[in-house]
Amino acid sequence: MSLGTIYGVGLGPGDPELMSVRADRLLRSARHVAFFRKAGRSGQARRIVDGLLHGDAVEFAMEYPVTTEIPVDDPAYNAALSTFYAECTAHLRALAASGEDVVVLCEGDPFFFGSFMHLYTRLKEDVPVEVVPAITGMSGAWTATGHPVTWGDDILTVLMGTLPEDVLTDAMTRSDAVVVMKIGRHFDKVKSALRAADKYDTAWLIEYASMPQQTVQKLSEAGDKITPYFSIIVVHGQGRRP
Amino acid sequence: MSLGTIYGVGLGPGDPELMSVRADRLLRSARHVAFFRKAGRSGQARRIVDGLLHGDAVEFAMEYPVTTEIPVDDPAYNAALSTFYAECTAHLRALAASGEDVVVLCEGDPFFFGSFMHLYTRLKEDVPVEVVPAITGMSGAWTATGHPVTWGDDILTVLMGTLPEDVLTDAMTRSDAVVVMKIGRHFDKVKSALRAADKYDTAWLIEYASMPQQTVQKLSEAGDKITPYFSIIVVHGQGRRP
Repeated sequence: MSLGTIYGVGLGPGDPELMSVRADRLLRSARHVAFFRKAGRSGQARRIVDGLLHGDAVEFAMEYPVTTEIPVDDPAYNAALSTFYAECTAHLRALAASGEDVVVLCEGDPFFFGSFMHLYTRLKEDVPVEVVPAITGMSGAWTATGHPVTWGDDILTVLMGTLPEDVLTDAMTRSDAVVVMKIGRHFDKVKSALRAADKYDTAWLIEYASMPQQTVQKLSEAGDKITPYFSIIVVHGQGRRP
Repeated sequence: MSLGTIYGVGLGPGDPELMSVRADRLLRSARHVAFFRKAGRSGQARRIVDGLLHGDAVEFAMEYPVTTEIPVDDPAYNAALSTFYAECTAHLRALAASGEDVVVLCEGDPFFFGSFMHLYTRLKEDVPVEVVPAITGMSGAWTATGHPVTWGDDILTVLMGTLPEDVLTDAMTRSDAVVVMKIGRHFDKVKSALRAADKYDTAWLIEYASMPQQTVQKLSEAGDKITPYFSIIVVHGQGRRP
């Protein structure tokens, strides 16, 4: 019997119409579908594909043992996640060994941050793994602003809000266009870095890009609270334009 | 009579299966299709949609008056392109005024570098314009390498090969993951900057990502010549991974 294939399928920013033709086809015909979610939640990746899956699809929910309860720099965090990923991959490897293909749902683009990469590195030596790229969340965000993000030879830097403030400020100062993700509890620090880099007044805050709840506003007009997971800050470049 | 809509439709990196479901549907039903190309060429955007367009679709090829014949910092370059974009938008505006929708084909993602933005800024005050985001060429490139591009809180910087060498070196040094586009005649300079930033040995060169002619190799094993337009260099981040 030949091995099944594990497909890491990018779902894009959230609008099901923004999935690729290939992702859409793989999803609709999948007999096994796996996805990450926080325990007790339905899971964003699973929600995006509501109504698309085959009625007979077998679902495998991979529930994070921790999300924000343990700091990421605590060894216990890495240990808990490492055990979790090993358990997930054991299940996927067993399915592939029995000849079954499995579609793993990935928010955004599978190789651009995200959890699938941790399964991928553990599986790729043992079973066939294929990755279907997707529209990134940040692309959904800058499209939502109605302004192009980069022109001419603009420098674009993508930063996580988890970085130290001086690192953020330095990178923002040296860039034309900036994207900040993973903002959550780091919102005040990120705003402070943008001010220091003289980019606060031109920054935009996009929440739930491409989804029904999408909001788009100038950062300076936003409140002090944001949606932890689905917020992206965009500063547009101002490069050469004939 | 109501105005038609101009759709800026991102086609993604090149594989028609990587277009979004929405792009695919808009293309197949389009009665008017516009696209950029170099004079005398069929045009990459038009090639991607070969076989997808409706038989009755009216095509409008927008042929660049210059590409590399005049340096981009010569005022004559800007003047020629500015006149060209004004002519293109006059035609699109007239179609919209007569109630026709037009699909403008955009390689990659319309708001991430590229020519459509120059039409967009000239049209958006006068006629309805909608933008359909897409998978970027760089996403096609890093997926092709078989390695995730960013992990944890890696910093990703996207750079054009047209930038001065010291700017390239500085940005590369301060980043974990790097993407370089618009390499062409700047190949030697880009390689020199990567060496100075100690990232040459880990860089990959991807040509024609996601297309039938795709090649993927370590930059250090590549020759001295590259495909001017479809080459992307990727340096992967090495951030936190449980």
